[in-house]
Amino acid sequence: MEKLRIGLIGTGYMGKAHNIAFKACPAVFPLSASIECEMLAEVNQTLAEQKAKDLGFNRATGDWRSLVNDPDVDVVDICSPNYLHKDMALAAIAAGKHVYSEKPLALNAVDAKEMTEAAEKAGIKTLVGFNYVKNPVAQLVKEIIENGEIGNIVHFRGTHNEDYLADPNTPFSWRLKRELAGSGTLGDMGSHIINMAQYLVGDINEVVADLQTVIKERPLLSNGQAENNNQYAKVENDDQAHMMVRFSNGAIGTLESSRIACGRKMGLTYEITGTKGTIVFDQERLSELQLFTNTDPSNRQGFRTILVGPEHPDYAAFCVASGHGLGYNDQKIVEVRDLVEGIFADKPMWPDFRTAYEVNKILDAAELSYKESRWVKLSEIE
Amino acid sequence: MEKLRIGLIGTGYMGKAHNIAFKACPAVFPLSASIECEMLAEVNQTLAEQKAKDLGFNRATGDWRSLVNDPDVDVVDICSPNYLHKDMALAAIAAGKHVYSEKPLALNAVDAKEMTEAAEKAGIKTLVGFNYVKNPVAQLVKEIIENGEIGNIVHFRGTHNEDYLADPNTPFSWRLKRELAGSGTLGDMGSHIINMAQYLVGDINEVVADLQTVIKERPLLSNGQAENNNQYAKVENDDQAHMMVRFSNGAIGTLESSRIACGRKMGLTYEITGTKGTIVFDQERLSELQLFTNTDPSNRQGFRTILVGPEHPDYAAFCVASGHGLGYNDQKIVEVRDLVEGIFADKPMWPDFRTAYEVNKILDAAELSYKESRWVKLSEIE
Amino acid sequence: MEKLRIGLIGTGYMGKAHNIAFKACPAVFPLSASIECEMLAEVNQTLAEQKAKDLGFNRATGDWRSLVNDPDVDVVDICSPNYLHKDMALAAIAAGKHVYSEKPLALNAVDAKEMTEAAEKAGIKTLVGFNYVKNPVAQLVKEIIENGEIGNIVHFRGTHNEDYLADPNTPFSWRLKRELAGSGTLGDMGSHIINMAQYLVGDINEVVADLQTVIKERPLLSNGQAENNNQYAKVENDDQAHMMVRFSNGAIGTLESSRIACGRKMGLTYEITGTKGTIVFDQERLSELQLFTNTDPSNRQGFRTILVGPEHPDYAAFCVASGHGLGYNDQKIVEVRDLVEGIFADKPMWPDFRTAYEVNKILDAAELSYKESRWVKLSEIE
Amino acid sequence: MEKLRIGLIGTGYMGKAHNIAFKACPAVFPLSASIECEMLAEVNQTLAEQKAKDLGFNRATGDWRSLVNDPDVDVVDICSPNYLHKDMALAAIAAGKHVYSEKPLALNAVDAKEMTEAAEKAGIKTLVGFNYVKNPVAQLVKEIIENGEIGNIVHFRGTHNEDYLADPNTPFSWRLKRELAGSGTLGDMGSHIINMAQYLVGDINEVVADLQTVIKERPLLSNGQAENNNQYAKVENDDQAHMMVRFSNGAIGTLESSRIACGRKMGLTYEITGTKGTIVFDQERLSELQLFTNTDPSNRQGFRTILVGPEHPDYAAFCVASGHGLGYNDQKIVEVRDLVEGIFADKPMWPDFRTAYEVNKILDAAELSYKESRWVKLSEIE
Repeated sequence: MEKLRIGLIGTGYMGKAHNIAFKACPAVFPLSASIECEMLAEVNQTLAEQKAKDLGFNRATGDWRSLVNDPDVDVVDICSPNYLHKDMALAAIAAGKHVYSEKPLALNAVDAKEMTEAAEKAGIKTLVGFNYVKNPVAQLVKEIIENGEIGNIVHFRGTHNEDYLADPNTPFSWRLKRELAGSGTLGDMGSHIINMAQYLVGDINEVVADLQTVIKERPLLSNGQAENNNQYAKVENDDQAHMMVRFSNGAIGTLESSRIACGRKMGLTYEITGTKGTIVFDQERLSELQLFTNTDPSNRQGFRTILVGPEHPDYAAFCVASGHGLGYNDQKIVEVRDLVEGIFADKPMWPDFRTAYEVNKILDAAELSYKESRWVKLSEIE
Repeated sequence: MEKLRIGLIGTGYMGKAHNIAFKACPAVFPLSASIECEMLAEVNQTLAEQKAKDLGFNRATGDWRSLVNDPDVDVVDICSPNYLHKDMALAAIAAGKHVYSEKPLALNAVDAKEMTEAAEKAGIKTLVGFNYVKNPVAQLVKEIIENGEIGNIVHFRGTHNEDYLADPNTPFSWRLKRELAGSGTLGDMGSHIINMAQYLVGDINEVVADLQTVIKERPLLSNGQAENNNQYAKVENDDQAHMMVRFSNGAIGTLESSRIACGRKMGLTYEITGTKGTIVFDQERLSELQLFTNTDPSNRQGFRTILVGPEHPDYAAFCVASGHGLGYNDQKIVEVRDLVEGIFADKPMWPDFRTAYEVNKILDAAELSYKESRWVKLSEIE
Repeated sequence: MEKLRIGLIGTGYMGKAHNIAFKACPAVFPLSASIECEMLAEVNQTLAEQKAKDLGFNRATGDWRSLVNDPDVDVVDICSPNYLHKDMALAAIAAGKHVYSEKPLALNAVDAKEMTEAAEKAGIKTLVGFNYVKNPVAQLVKEIIENGEIGNIVHFRGTHNEDYLADPNTPFSWRLKRELAGSGTLGDMGSHIINMAQYLVGDINEVVADLQTVIKERPLLSNGQAENNNQYAKVENDDQAHMMVRFSNGAIGTLESSRIACGRKMGLTYEITGTKGTIVFDQERLSELQLFTNTDPSNRQGFRTILVGPEHPDYAAFCVASGHGLGYNDQKIVEVRDLVEGIFADKPMWPDFRTAYEVNKILDAAELSYKESRWVKLSEIE
Repeated sequence: MEKLRIGLIGTGYMGKAHNIAFKACPAVFPLSASIECEMLAEVNQTLAEQKAKDLGFNRATGDWRSLVNDPDVDVVDICSPNYLHKDMALAAIAAGKHVYSEKPLALNAVDAKEMTEAAEKAGIKTLVGFNYVKNPVAQLVKEIIENGEIGNIVHFRGTHNEDYLADPNTPFSWRLKRELAGSGTLGDMGSHIINMAQYLVGDINEVVADLQTVIKERPLLSNGQAENNNQYAKVENDDQAHMMVRFSNGAIGTLESSRIACGRKMGLTYEITGTKGTIVFDQERLSELQLFTNTDPSNRQGFRTILVGPEHPDYAAFCVASGHGLGYNDQKIVEVRDLVEGIFADKPMWPDFRTAYEVNKILDAAELSYKESRWVKLSEIE
């Protein structure tokens, strides 16, 4: 059996999630190759070695460039802060490695385009970690739509709201600095709901956006501690992002993201209205969806709660019994299955860099729209 | 005890709802005056007399102008189609009668302004039937906000979606004709969610809107029957209306209305996010609200479902026990209480014509925004 | 048009609810007779006169026996504490009056039998106020079952839980005294869920029960104030009542009632499982039900939320649009419609005294079962 | 680092779930030992070898006894049908191996006692796979109760209902045969809700039960196909099981299990009422709980939905962000963590054989109660 040898860069929140998926995926899905956790890079050698031990990787390095160029690494898995994605991906592509990157792909569309074109020219495979589209329920929603069960889509309302920065005393971090993160909640979580809209409805042609930084400055930490001298740093990107969008298929919609939405922990939600029915989803209840169809008898119509089960995409590999529930990490397991099968069985790999570049274009369009107080066509963005 | 003598114009859906409220209100609330169902106007004398008998009114007329000028009518209650509101209200004001009108107040802001100024000049009392703000739960939400329990409001998302025109075979009606109805779902149901935003968040300063007519034409009826010859009439106003808004207090929001939202029967919903908490409401569960506050211990936080009860505004008059549930007509009963107490106890009457005129301005701003593809300031609208 | 002249005894919680229904019912439903609020009885003449003025009754008396025998009273409406129902009903029956009584009908089955037989012998009409079966949603549930949409019923789980006595400092009242109230939550709220089971599933043949008084004593009030001297009275009936039941159609079930169920305000709930589907209802969301049927395609099955609307029983009279919501008092309006139509149009009146007597038998069987720690057949109870 | 070498018997539904947990657990939790998937037993050598390859085990055997006695197996993991648990566990204990067994532990209390005493005498460690108590939400519920946040428990209502046998055409299987499975839904799923009651409320002293086989016979399969000749086999155990229970701490409750509950896919639910609050849980939404406490201000009380997060037990190892959701397999990962830490760090291992024996006693008491139509004290059962 062939092996997919992973080179993981970054071992924070996402690095750990990727690792759980690498370890569990072969026990969940039959795979065309085994997965070898080959090498791991962190900011220095000491930390890298500690993490390799903790995460069960064979080797460790304090220099991501040596990982990217290591002959025993087949795929470079980028779990670093946003501003590093570009250099790492370009280096990996140059070394002929497949790339599995966290989102958003780049700080802006120009960079994303460069990365996409490099990858396509090199003929390597790319996958971007918009994991919520890997949820079997999201796949089921797509199936329902493609079957025509809700007719033609006329409306999409999507949100990705969380409250991890709702407290004004939460300290400043790289995510709030433009040159390290790009936009704020728009790119961080907004990119997820944009990708979901792409997946389920299709291309977005036009956008008008409103952005707002509600908490203008935040306390600076020194050595991980809030400073005594009450130093504050200016927040450089948006806390709230609203958009109205027009899809190429004629549907219209609203998208919304917030990182200060008190009470929302995983508030990726959507409501999709078609000419024959409506679908409602809330990621906080990730194993179910609400479906309304006007083909039920008129006096028995209602939104029904469908619990995901073995008759739906990809669920049976996790459990043969319905409604037993999937979790966040299970989505990453599906994503890793797609990585392995994309490389070894030549299955389609989605969302790839090109798709993620489209997301970056929408992010740029939203920022331009806000700056110029007008609708912006996607065709205006490079 | 004094009497409030009602002159009701129109006995359709809303006329019946008003009548239920006139009859039940004195049994629910202690009132400063009794209510006399004095006179009723319909499109002809025969129908008017039949309806007067059915609804328990003393007298009937086929001519609304004679009702408006009748010396034994104290308040004119306008439950006719939108395009008639203006003439009826102006005539009632001219006759020195108080006016209780259904919404939207007028076909446009210019008309609404004329009506408002006439009413204020005449010193008569006005009340407009945006009944959802009368729901004790809406009053409780306002109380929570005014107490500062969710901090400063930063975000409002509101919808009023229904599906009563989702079926393309539903025939053409006056609501789809611009000169009779004005805008489409924007004015019909959108006006409700706009009024709710005014009530709970405050003035809207700026708006950008997207409007869409999805079902472009509908079958014409002849004598209440669909014609054999498949005649269709062109739909002249919007099926879907989206808006992004900016409030004068700095909050931003999205408003949305649809009359083709499959599965939504009374989809007036809102989510209000503040710096300390969030409120979620859905009119399909009109007797409850969801409240999240960050003052709960961090490991015990969550949205709590508060069932309306006797400790909340106006509920105890309906039932002394919590959670027993209020219905649609109960909101109208509160509204009628406000009508009686506004006139006889000089209590504030809200929403009055001036408030409803503000709603009409927002509707006009939304239409202008859509036409010119840009943000429109409310100060641009007369 | 004929008149139904009401004689109301008792103006507390239920007396007010009845009066709202008397006033609103003719505006909601077309009726075969008008309703005249003729006479009202309270514990003394002064209170009676005050209440007659408040509630809009023509006459008042401090002596319920004079009301019962008044020639201008057609129906005696009993809203007094439980222990008085028997004498009042028997006197009304003796005077040839129809009787509309609150529940439970009597303190025990022996009394209920006497009342039932007297009523049947006299040929008068009876109606008992188990109003939750009048909810259009409950009627819809019955329709679904009778249509065979969920197949044969195999299981019923019902509760009626509230928390109005959850606080041990809530003072002693007549409801806690056996000779005034009979059993505790078993008869007070348990009788509602028993009646619902009768309505929806059918006769109960056998029962085993567990009863418990959790809060053994409560503070005594003197003149409506908690005494300084900390006097307590012993609670004489159950705070919690559990039952397992066997229906005559072979279904089995559990019934449960509590008056100390923290957080439950109107916790009348039921789940009915059939061989083809399941229905779930919660009175705290009284305008909706959940329906699962196995006739949906296997990969699209789920519980659907049906919002009550004009295609369902009795709703259209309240509102022509779906999902606008009914409230507690609306159930009493349906009940009063049944009272009027039962008397003037000879429509079936249900639940009548005989049905309520069956409820009392089940209450007695439960108490006997608990006392003797065994299953009790209903045929053992007189 | 030390190793825990697993010997897995049975590779069906549960065997696969165990294997996912073995592989993922070290990536989720820091462990005191590594996990080696050493040996696997199936019904024959061929199948065993195929499965070992699929599941990533080192070695395979067609004879479970050789696995049990293999010197390189440290723990025997029993995922076989119920009737085999006893022989396998006794053999493993005799060989000095720790035992990790699926539930119910045994076909009856007598067997469970023998197994428990053997294990305790041998000093080996035991763990029984009642995985729902491992859900971080269940742990949080226990924490809330132990903190006294809902006061003293007075009531427990628990269910474990599914519909996997609701269709009468679902063929006969070993689960329906008494000598292979023991009781029906009572032992299969009822044992889960009994264990949950033990975990959260405490010991059960007394029980009265009602059992019912609704679908009396089912089609026989030959070679996995329904026979042409319509052969049916008699169902030998219960489809529905109801119980009323009395706990040693004075609380009372109802327990219910069904395998024919249309629409219920993972219907393990409970409601726990205390003197100060109430907790509601539904395994179909396994990452949340509802909490009501009467310490909230009286006009702001309500059930709040708490989404599990990193401030709650064991969640942070899966994800550092709140509300991202756990799945069915994650519970098994916690269970395996407990297995490893129980053995290598001498942490308490629960539920062990003794606890599972108590469950078996309650199952036996329920069957005796049903047979003799009476309350049965647990002290009556060996």
